[in-house]
Parts: sequence; C-alpha cells; structure tokens
Amino acid sequence: MAAEIVNPRSDSENRDASEQGGGAAEPLESFDPAFALHRGGKMAVQATVPVRDKDDLSLAYTPGVAKVCSAIAEQPELVHDYTWKSSVVAVVTDGTAVLGLGDIGPEASLPVMEGKAILFKQFGGVDAVPLALNCTDVDEIVETVVRLAPSFGGVNLEDISAPRCFEIERRLQERLDIPVFHDDQHGTAVVTLAALRNAARLSGRPLGELRAVISGAGAAGVAIAKMLVEAGIGDVAVADRKGVVSRDREDLTPIKAELASFTNKAGISGPLESALAGADVFIGVSGGTVPEPAVASMAEGAFVFAMANPNPEVHPEVAHKYAAVVATGRSDFPNQINNVLAFPGIFAGALQVRASRITEGMKLAAAEALAAVVGDDLAADYVIPSPFDERVAPAVTAAVAAAARAEGVARR
Amino acid sequence: MAAEIVNPRSDSENRDASEQGGGAAEPLESFDPAFALHRGGKMAVQATVPVRDKDDLSLAYTPGVAKVCSAIAEQPELVHDYTWKSSVVAVVTDGTAVLGLGDIGPEASLPVMEGKAILFKQFGGVDAVPLALNCTDVDEIVETVVRLAPSFGGVNLEDISAPRCFEIERRLQERLDIPVFHDDQHGTAVVTLAALRNAARLSGRPLGELRAVISGAGAAGVAIAKMLVEAGIGDVAVADRKGVVSRDREDLTPIKAELASFTNKAGISGPLESALAGADVFIGVSGGTVPEPAVASMAEGAFVFAMANPNPEVHPEVAHKYAAVVATGRSDFPNQINNVLAFPGIFAGALQVRASRITEGMKLAAAEALAAVVGDDLAADYVIPSPFDERVAPAVTAAVAAAARAEGVARR
Repeated sequence: MAAEIVNPRSDSENRDASEQGGGAAEPLESFDPAFALHRGGKMAVQATVPVRDKDDLSLAYTPGVAKVCSAIAEQPELVHDYTWKSSVVAVVTDGTAVLGLGDIGPEASLPVMEGKAILFKQFGGVDAVPLALNCTDVDEIVETVVRLAPSFGGVNLEDISAPRCFEIERRLQERLDIPVFHDDQHGTAVVTLAALRNAARLSGRPLGELRAVISGAGAAGVAIAKMLVEAGIGDVAVADRKGVVSRDREDLTPIKAELASFTNKAGISGPLESALAGADVFIGVSGGTVPEPAVASMAEGAFVFAMANPNPEVHPEVAHKYAAVVATGRSDFPNQINNVLAFPGIFAGALQVRASRITEGMKLAAAEALAAVVGDDLAADYVIPSPFDERVAPAVTAAVAAAARAEGVARR
Repeated sequence: MAAEIVNPRSDSENRDASEQGGGAAEPLESFDPAFALHRGGKMAVQATVPVRDKDDLSLAYTPGVAKVCSAIAEQPELVHDYTWKSSVVAVVTDGTAVLGLGDIGPEASLPVMEGKAILFKQFGGVDAVPLALNCTDVDEIVETVVRLAPSFGGVNLEDISAPRCFEIERRLQERLDIPVFHDDQHGTAVVTLAALRNAARLSGRPLGELRAVISGAGAAGVAIAKMLVEAGIGDVAVADRKGVVSRDREDLTPIKAELASFTNKAGISGPLESALAGADVFIGVSGGTVPEPAVASMAEGAFVFAMANPNPEVHPEVAHKYAAVVATGRSDFPNQINNVLAFPGIFAGALQVRASRITEGMKLAAAEALAAVVGDDLAADYVIPSPFDERVAPAVTAAVAAAARAEGVARR
C-alpha cells in the first residue's frame, strides 16, 4: 500500500468561520457541546495513494487508470482487488425510525448516519458512507439500493421503520450478492445473545432451560426472538402493546403471525405481566415501564436486560432487587448492550472474505466470539465486554470470516 | 474542530495479503505499476472527531447526537452546519462513456471515479464519494440521484454518454437545490476558455475577432461551443463525423439542432476542413486526425488545442509549424488542458457559499480566474497553469464563490 495522505479540510475552515456570521447555529453551540462537536460534520474522505505530481497522477488517474478499468471490464471480480468496493459499506436510511426520535426525515437523520459511519471505521476499520434517502416507499428504496450496489461491498440498513424494514432487507438480500444487514435487528440480536450466553454460563444453566420474555415486537424484538430460538433457548414469548403474541390473536400483522408460529410454546396469552410470571429472562426493546411486581414475579436468579434508552424498562436499582444479572442500553450502568460491539466486526469479517451475504451461522458465531471475550472475568456485572475493549472487533471479525467460509458464502 | 483521527485500514492488510493467494490479480501487478498502486482502492473514510472513550461516544453518537438531529428536524438548513453535507459531492456515473474506453459498466468505471474523488480532495479540499450506478435509463438515473440528494452538497456527473448526459443534467438541475455539474461538459469548457483567453491576450486579439472550429459534437464539444459564444467569441463552428453542424443539415439530433441555432454564423457546410480554412482556433475533442494541409489552411497565428488522449488530433510537432499557440490534453507537452484545473475549485467555491446551482456566470468567473493565474508569465508555451500550481484552486474557489453571491444563488 502507498502512504496515506491526509488532506486538511481547507474549505471547511472557511465554512466554519464564515465571515457572514454563524446565523442560526451559534446559539445552539453555546448551550450544548454536541453542537460544537458536530460543526462541519464528523467525517471526511482521504486519498490513500499519493497525488503529488505528474507521475502520481498518471498512475492514479489517466492514463494509468485505464488499464485497471479494462482489466475489471474483462474480469469483473477484479473490482474487489483494485477499488475500495471491498472495504466500503453504504449506511442506508430513510430517516423514519431514528433513535427514539421517530420519523424525522433524511436530512435530520444524517448526524446519526455519520456517527454510524465513524463507528464502522473506528471499531472495524470499515469505510462507510451515509446515504439518507428522501423516499420511504419500499419499492423505491429497494431499487435505489440495487442501483447503488456496484460501488459498495455491503449495505447496512439503519433506522428504517417496521414493518417496511423487514421487506426491504429481504428483497435486497434476494437481489444483491453483497451482505445486506439491518443493524437495528441483527446487531441488537447478536449482542443480546452474547450477553445472555454469558449470563447463562455464570448461573450454570443451559440456554435450553431458559424461558425468555421480550417486550417489543418491532425490528429488534423480532430479530432477538428469532436468534434466541436459533441459539436453542427453551422458550421465548414476545409481547407488543396489546399483550403476548400468540397464535390465538386475530390482530397480528404477517410478521407477528410468523413470530407466533415459532415462539410462545407455553401458549401464554394476555398482558406482558402474564408472561413474566416465572420467566427466567426479560428483554426490553420497547420503552415504557415494567411494574415492579411483574419483575418480582420472575423466577429466582432471573436476568433482566432492560435496553430502552434513555429510560430502561426496569431501572437497574429495581432490577437488582430480584435479578441475578442486569443489563441495560446505557453506558453509565454495567453490562451495556451496545450494537457497536457487533456491527463493525460483522461487516469487517464479511468483507474480508467477500461474503455474498451474512448468514444466521455468521451471526451466531459473532455472538459466541463476543461472549468469549469476557472469558474468566465473567461476573454478574460483566457479562458483555466494553465497547472500547480492543479485543472485541478482531474476535468478531475472525469468527464471522471463519463462519462465512464454513457456510460456503465466502468468495476468498 | 476536533483533532483528526486516521484509522489504519486494518482489514485491508488482511485483504492484501490473503492467505489464499492473490488469485487472478497478481500477474497483472508484475507487469504494470498501476495495478500495484490500485490494490485495495485509492481512498478511505476518516473520522474528524474523536471516538476514543465513553464521553466521546456520548457526544458523537447517542445520546448527544439526538439533540443535533432534533435541531435539524426543526430547522432544516442546519443540516449544512452540523453534517458533512456541505463538504461532500457525489461523483455519479453509469459507466457508459469512461475515458476513451466507452461503455465498460459501473464496476469497471470505479477506478476512474475513485481517481476523480481523490482529485476533488487533493486539489479542492472537497470530500467526494464515487457512485457508479447499474442503470442507464435516464428516468432511473434521475430518480436515483434525486433520492440520494439529502446526503450531498453537490453532484458531479461523470462519464455518462451523450445525448443522455444532457437530459440527465438538465432534469437534475430542475429537481435539486444543490449544484449538479457534468464535468465532461463544463469542466472541459472552463479550462478551454481559460487557455483561449490567454492565447488571445498573448496575440493581442480580442475574443470577438476570433473564429473557432470545434471537432466533436459530444458532451465536451457542445459545452465548449456554448461557453465560447457566451464569452463573446466572434464565431464558432462545430463539426461531427458528418461534417460541420449547420442549419441546412437534416440529420441533426435535437442537441445538434440547438447547436446549429447559435453557432456557425458564417454558414459553413461540408467537412471539418472547409471550416478550418482561414479559422483562428482549432479545438479538438473528438479523437481522429486532422490532415496537415487542413492545419496549414488556418489563419496566420492560429491556436491549435488538440485535446484528444492519448493521441492529439494534430501532433504538437505538426501544429507548431503553423500555429502560434499549441495545447493538448497530455501532461508530457506544454499547455495541458486538464479538467482538474477547474472542477475542484468550482465545487469548493459553490459549496463554500452553499450555492443552489452552478450558473454560467460562475463558470465564466472560474475561467477568468484560472487564466489570470498565469499573469505576467504568459507565453506561447504557458497559456494555462500546471495542475500542480497551488494558486489555482484557491483562485477558482474565490472567483466562483464571489460569482455565486453576485448572481444570487449563494445561501450564505
């Protein structure tokens, strides 16, 4: 590889110190440091080859580049060798389900997408480009991403509202030969499973003996339910706002009807509370609050993963009264279930072997590798590593790459 | 601005030294250094804010980012202040007219698009993202770019074949409130006009007294003709493969019929040679060869800009026998007409003032500023600056920004 050149963002200096005054922006910066940090955005592009003189230009651009183009035209797979395709992921959203903010539109979603992009880079060494689309129609989103696919090694779908997110992901996976991964679903599921594996190990109980209850039947809840069942959990019940998803309900969407077909073996119906009585695991991805008596009704030595942000469904202080292991989505409590533990390594591993897709086996391998990082330090307040544990991304990357090869979806 | 973090492309190391052997790629690298340079691509993404610890993450990502998103949702124009939108350009192609290679498809065009992106950065400080689309239908390209527009401050169309390139640009300019610029047209025209201004200054002749002949009625030829007429040249005739474009021809496409309406005041018809007799300026953007007698038939003290690559329409040695000023598209002769002299500064200037489009006045200002860089050093072998002259991009940027303000298309 040639030396890296870092370009100063010369014109951003101009933009940042506009001679016309900051306009509407400046008051914001005086009352919150997040605004000052975000000024001018959080990312940049850099050349990784020199462009200092005529000779550099004649190799990196015309006439030298023509031979590389011709070679790719003759042998299409060379695009992975001689462009950044195999190191770059599109972070695609339509801005309809952004954080806890909801449908705020593509422009307003961009700070989150840029944040995601720099996390990809920082934690996985993966280049990522934020693409916030101003369309919300499933067909339009699918067609747009298909047309963009030649330039990217993978697609990370982000903050697209349910149930459209399920169909968009499924159709893109059918149409494209690069990984398509809706992180709000699968990233969350991988990290949740990793924490659950370690909690089970700590308490000496096999997954097959556990009964879990998930509050929330959106993107994350559906994906977690599927993953826990694949990982061999004893039983899982999912509750939406109307209560436990069960086969006897007549108001189910197609996605929830599918959910009912492989969850809730116990045949529970009624409100969330009826499922929690005697349950071993609570997984909250819904917001709202679970009443303390319902937490108290869980089985002895339960695990409570209350992942809503910023307000967990069960406050950790309450949860600790009844549960053996408590996790949240917040960085200021122990055991933070944070997607950044998964998606950078999952894509890095998939890109490394040029996987055509991300299989269930690759996700399960990611969860196992992530859980294994904790190792002998396992404790009730340490069932999942810190996002800043430098062992995490390499472990997940290696496990995902190996699983891709084992499953036959690797192309190198 | 926070400090820049440069990430090592950790997984690219793995990709570059695959344990499975290099496969088809390695033999190529042994016979051409361009392949070795292109391995793994030529660009990367970098974070421009720190993401080193929990506190960093809570500002750059959740929960801090939510306030920035909410602010943009309330005041949409803040997207320019708090994301990289105003510093990033989409380099969009469909791979149908790549260099001299023609329709090689999106994947094979990527090395050129990456090259363009790093030139944007290196010469203009502009971030650029290569987007090679796998569709060639005008409607599909237009819709795709419209959907992508929220994420970008501008769109550079590249290597899209004529005549589709004209309609795609026109429709995108109508639909979007950010600059849309087909560099193969306007970048070439700006640099050509700059060289012509200086050649005219050198010979002491006003533009209004010059008659120019353009060989080639594709993207570049059409745009150069328009720009020269706007700049006040005496007359310009354009020749395609069938001869001079004139009102009496019945085989003209709509674009060429429009061309006939404002060019060729002299009413010349017949082959290119009939227009060259007595002409003051030859501009070649066609390929092919102009016979020496036709060059000899031009007016005394003529200018010959033979810009085809790698083989100029008139070899400089031949041209110098008859012409006062000779320019080519090649870096190994004096007076290289190179688009990189224009597009980085044009976009940098437009982005700096958040221009809603790039007007004719902005392009004319760019050409004047580019010509002025030559200053008192003007000579027959120096009518246009070197691409590596560091005065060029700042001069073009400032001129374009000032013109945008003067023309009322600046938003700051």
